[in-house]
Amino acid sequence: MSSSTIPSSALGHPGYHDTRDAQLKRLRRIEGQVRGLQRMIDEDTYCIDVLTQVSAVTRALQAVSLGLLEEHLRHCVVDAARQSEEAGQIKIDEATAAIARLVRS
Amino acid sequence: MSSSTIPSSALGHPGYHDTRDAQLKRLRRIEGQVRGLQRMIDEDTYCIDVLTQVSAVTRALQAVSLGLLEEHLRHCVVDAARQSEEAGQIKIDEATAAIARLVRS
Amino acid sequence: MSSSTIPSSALGHPGYHDTRDAQLKRLRRIEGQVRGLQRMIDEDTYCIDVLTQVSAVTRALQAVSLGLLEEHLRHCVVDAARQSEEAGQIKIDEATAAIARLVRS
Amino acid sequence: MSSSTIPSSALGHPGYHDTRDAQLKRLRRIEGQVRGLQRMIDEDTYCIDVLTQVSAVTRALQAVSLGLLEEHLRHCVVDAARQSEEAGQIKIDEATAAIARLVRS
Repeated sequence: MSSSTIPSSALGHPGYHDTRDAQLKRLRRIEGQVRGLQRMIDEDTYCIDVLTQVSAVTRALQAVSLGLLEEHLRHCVVDAARQSEEAGQIKIDEATAAIARLVRS
Repeated sequence: MSSSTIPSSALGHPGYHDTRDAQLKRLRRIEGQVRGLQRMIDEDTYCIDVLTQVSAVTRALQAVSLGLLEEHLRHCVVDAARQSEEAGQIKIDEATAAIARLVRS
Repeated sequence: MSSSTIPSSALGHPGYHDTRDAQLKRLRRIEGQVRGLQRMIDEDTYCIDVLTQVSAVTRALQAVSLGLLEEHLRHCVVDAARQSEEAGQIKIDEATAAIARLVRS
Repeated sequence: MSSSTIPSSALGHPGYHDTRDAQLKRLRRIEGQVRGLQRMIDEDTYCIDVLTQVSAVTRALQAVSLGLLEEHLRHCVVDAARQSEEAGQIKIDEATAAIARLVRS
């Protein structure tokens, strides 16, 4: 079995293992955007312009969530479902609860 | 006319002028949370735990938005509406567009 | 004072008075869409296609909300703010709470 | 193999097959709520009370979506992933796109 076919979660890796650099890059950019928001408030920027920028940061965080969720389904949930019916059910209950938090936040 | 009765937006202040310190404090905390997310990913934290924390940051950003919007309505929109019918309409169109972005983000 | 300059809320009308027909039309269309969802489920339509249609209905309801909110700000909130500082504050607290429910739903 | 262990999607059933009655019941209740909204607007109900009720209907629709999605993951996605790597990937791409629409609506 070549290393590329070993499911990452079987090696103790989280589902986002292969996209981790992209996710870290996104989060560093979001950190910069949050510092930018502080500067905007510090400089008395007009409310509506600050609000527009907060919406942009919220959307960037959603992209992180959707990316994490996709890789979680692709690796952790699928691997568990192949392992056993019960392991799959547990992962799906957990993923559904995470999706509900995401939809409501 | 005492200074306390001068509407802040008439002095060139944004609507959030009186709550600016609270908003900056929130944003510094959010910045720390975003750095915490980077650490979580760096340390291979389980996907669902990262997702839960991203939802917490998203909700914290929403609290910033709702706070900015409340003060914007309270000061900028109300002051404009008192000044003239037309100035009020312009501010309300603008606020409605910002609320739509917020609801959809 | 001509009738066109009497603010609608002063006549006991809700803020959406002038857009009521458009809102009723939207809601009748949404009612039809909800019946369409029942048919889709009755006919064993593929899950993802049902989900796409539920998202369309949710967006249609958001358009109703944003329309109601806009007219509420334009009439009820502005009229209250012109009447007195205190009446304006009460309406803005109430509108902010409604916006928060909308953002979180 | 007893009928209870045959995955429903293998029988050409959508993932929500086992929860279809509950979903239809929810949708009939939502249909009634949408008619209730029309009555509220017809009777000049105060804007904020209509908005509160629209938020309730939106949340009810989200419960439908989350239920459909859960059953879709549990049946269609898991069955495809067990069938082949490729079939699983296709279903996960599709589910992720549906989750993104749900989060953004």
